[in-house]
Amino acid sequence: MIMSRIEAPRDEDDAAAAVTGTLVDRLRAGLPAGSVLTDPDVTASYAHDMASFCPAGAPAVVVLPRTVEEVQHVMRTATALRVPVVPQGARTGLSGAANATDGCVVLSLTKMDRILEINPVDRVAVVEPGVVNATLSRAVDAHGLYYPPDPSSWEMCTIGGNIGTASGGLCCVKYGVTAEYVLGLDVVLADGRLMSTGRRTAKGVAGYDLTRLFVGSEGSLGIVVRAVLALRPKPPAQLVLAAEFASASAACDAICRIMEGGHVPSLLELMDRTTVKAVNDLAHMGLPETTEALLLAAFDTTDPAADLAAVGALCEAAGATQVVPAEDAAESELLLQARRLSLTALEAVKGTTMIDDVCVPRSRLGEMLEGVDRIAAKYGLTIGVCAHAGDGNTHPTVCFDALDPDESRRARESFDEIMALGLELDGTITGEHGVGVLKKEWLAREIGPVGLEMQRAVKQVFDPLGILNPGKLF
Amino acid sequence: MIMSRIEAPRDEDDAAAAVTGTLVDRLRAGLPAGSVLTDPDVTASYAHDMASFCPAGAPAVVVLPRTVEEVQHVMRTATALRVPVVPQGARTGLSGAANATDGCVVLSLTKMDRILEINPVDRVAVVEPGVVNATLSRAVDAHGLYYPPDPSSWEMCTIGGNIGTASGGLCCVKYGVTAEYVLGLDVVLADGRLMSTGRRTAKGVAGYDLTRLFVGSEGSLGIVVRAVLALRPKPPAQLVLAAEFASASAACDAICRIMEGGHVPSLLELMDRTTVKAVNDLAHMGLPETTEALLLAAFDTTDPAADLAAVGALCEAAGATQVVPAEDAAESELLLQARRLSLTALEAVKGTTMIDDVCVPRSRLGEMLEGVDRIAAKYGLTIGVCAHAGDGNTHPTVCFDALDPDESRRARESFDEIMALGLELDGTITGEHGVGVLKKEWLAREIGPVGLEMQRAVKQVFDPLGILNPGKLF
Repeated sequence: MIMSRIEAPRDEDDAAAAVTGTLVDRLRAGLPAGSVLTDPDVTASYAHDMASFCPAGAPAVVVLPRTVEEVQHVMRTATALRVPVVPQGARTGLSGAANATDGCVVLSLTKMDRILEINPVDRVAVVEPGVVNATLSRAVDAHGLYYPPDPSSWEMCTIGGNIGTASGGLCCVKYGVTAEYVLGLDVVLADGRLMSTGRRTAKGVAGYDLTRLFVGSEGSLGIVVRAVLALRPKPPAQLVLAAEFASASAACDAICRIMEGGHVPSLLELMDRTTVKAVNDLAHMGLPETTEALLLAAFDTTDPAADLAAVGALCEAAGATQVVPAEDAAESELLLQARRLSLTALEAVKGTTMIDDVCVPRSRLGEMLEGVDRIAAKYGLTIGVCAHAGDGNTHPTVCFDALDPDESRRARESFDEIMALGLELDGTITGEHGVGVLKKEWLAREIGPVGLEMQRAVKQVFDPLGILNPGKLF
Repeated sequence: MIMSRIEAPRDEDDAAAAVTGTLVDRLRAGLPAGSVLTDPDVTASYAHDMASFCPAGAPAVVVLPRTVEEVQHVMRTATALRVPVVPQGARTGLSGAANATDGCVVLSLTKMDRILEINPVDRVAVVEPGVVNATLSRAVDAHGLYYPPDPSSWEMCTIGGNIGTASGGLCCVKYGVTAEYVLGLDVVLADGRLMSTGRRTAKGVAGYDLTRLFVGSEGSLGIVVRAVLALRPKPPAQLVLAAEFASASAACDAICRIMEGGHVPSLLELMDRTTVKAVNDLAHMGLPETTEALLLAAFDTTDPAADLAAVGALCEAAGATQVVPAEDAAESELLLQARRLSLTALEAVKGTTMIDDVCVPRSRLGEMLEGVDRIAAKYGLTIGVCAHAGDGNTHPTVCFDALDPDESRRARESFDEIMALGLELDGTITGEHGVGVLKKEWLAREIGPVGLEMQRAVKQVFDPLGILNPGKLF
């Protein structure tokens, strides 16, 4: 850490203030008035993202550049003064990857929010990083196009943040994650130089795929200032089916039958009884509380009713107690709303949650859910599970009272035990939320010492001074 | 270069023989009899891939390991003796990326050819690198599954080679390239250590995406010894339509209308008049020689005839002189055969070809084809164009007599001018064939000095001694 905390003793404060003074003066020399924020009350509001239990420091300054040149100025200044830089989008992340470190420059990309191009023939969009996901989705929709990645925070989160985290969403089971849609990037490197990666063509293999290296790198390799994104033609509206099961394992059996049967649902989500009850308590949606697992399947094909009928039959064969296909788009939307409310609803259960993000091979989803049940019982905790079930991506959500130290300790321990279980089942500690500060120790466990050494060496190539989002990932 | 060529003067020969002797002895200590080939006539047959005009050296030895441990032994030996290693699959590549360098160890992965797992629920296959693409495709087909990447050489080329080159094929316009199907890798590093990257789950964002870094790295970062590949459910059989146009620009207009109209063909290929005539001359297929451009479109949807009708109407609107939908799978297959024969047929025109691989945004395909015509006229050459038109990926193929020095020079110049044109049109010098030795100077032009510096630094991380496929890419 280069500078001390705001709350540090007086003489350290003076030294820090002097450094900060130089830093701020230098930043202001290349940024317009109003783009450099130093009021501690304001900068403090940029300290962290939406992850629980992740340490966050106090930024020395927040900058809000509007051009590539301004970002270059920020990085040149940070390099010259050896000051850490924490890039941020909308700070909706769930791993602390956007959390400030003491004395850092918070580099918020939210003002670089222009959609530069939408091209229906090439099926690409060219955007700045601060464009909000929903804004882009609506803009391309107007051209008959579709930008699939849809994290739950899509009304707030930015494309730059999505790229940093390699975000997923509800549609991934059919359409894949953010990574699949990033064709090319303009990146400002740690030293302020500008580099272009990738392409705007449908295909291209010229040199190493540095584009994909930046996707999911959590701001630790460079600052994305422009992205070329692939688009798809807009699919027909999806139709949703809800199936109730008397056990989670029956629901998982249905999922296996659906995928083994060659179906390609546009959504295949699971909510356990705890989650269903939490959503009812919050929003009075009248979901069936007697069910142990509620499965939602959707198709956006030309004949979704036929696909739902086939999948409904498979659910029944797997022991579904009730199968209810939505009759129209409005009914479908209601079911999706219930799913989207899950995390908020679980948060209301005991005030605080830790949301895990373990992804396992879908053939092992049943073992995963059983294991989470065991862990909840062992620690005497409420753990609700909602899952992108078609991807095997579970979000076991530990509900606890943060004011109860013992319960908090048990919450943390169960959270870790869930990740250990995921690794045992050939899974990963993070399907879509990223590593950030929340899962740093676990990254090493997942990828092993050789992988870790190579990842660190790659980091060193792009950030030899270690100023880009230090303390994240590893 | 560490060792001299076989054809070198006597005393250098002696020194080389001594080094080779040590190398071969050490390799034999960890490899079974028959896995280490030193007969110069035999090793010479491993000297190059299928690219024209790419220099190739004489290997000191060829090794054919069958296990991960044997590959590790080879790399440890090569590191200890500082000997270059050239990894090879079936050597069907078109950029010289698999060409030997003088005194190298050729590391052929063709004997590591086991399919280790096919899992229809998880929709993954786990394979060794030497598995032939067609062998895998047929094996997964038997499970109702589909491995899309289908380079023209699919009956011969290996999955390891496909991964090294990030191969494409005819299906990419709907299903993407090899990179989209590689979930995880086991890689033997230059020093013989084993590293796992990625995952076998549908999603995962734990750390940097090193998997994608290896895909398309042309054997320059490590040796892929095992791959987890994503599979799709087998789609319905595709139905093909042929449309004739009086000009290439009318055909390109049709392509733009098709893509802008939101259609998702499973194939969208273009053959120019030169190519059509060459195929007729070779195979007497009775293709319409009066056409300036023949467009093939296919759909593998549930109602392909309806899709073909819609696309046929768009072709007519763009000025197609004739639109002929295939009536069944057999007729469709015949049209695809014509397309697959294109390169072989063009090779027969004057004995030798240089196959370019420029990919442009599909909205600029018309400009690309016009430009190639101009270049052909300027150099007085026959240049046939077949193209994965839906992707904007053109293969302008320069036909020439290699025994005519002036024509050979003009061929090389026109080949380069085609790449320059591609870059002017916002394209890439290689859509799917890779850089190898053929396009080394052009890679630098495409990615610029900063990109090149970073790519070299990444190479340095994984191969500090520079022994992995040296002289390729940059």
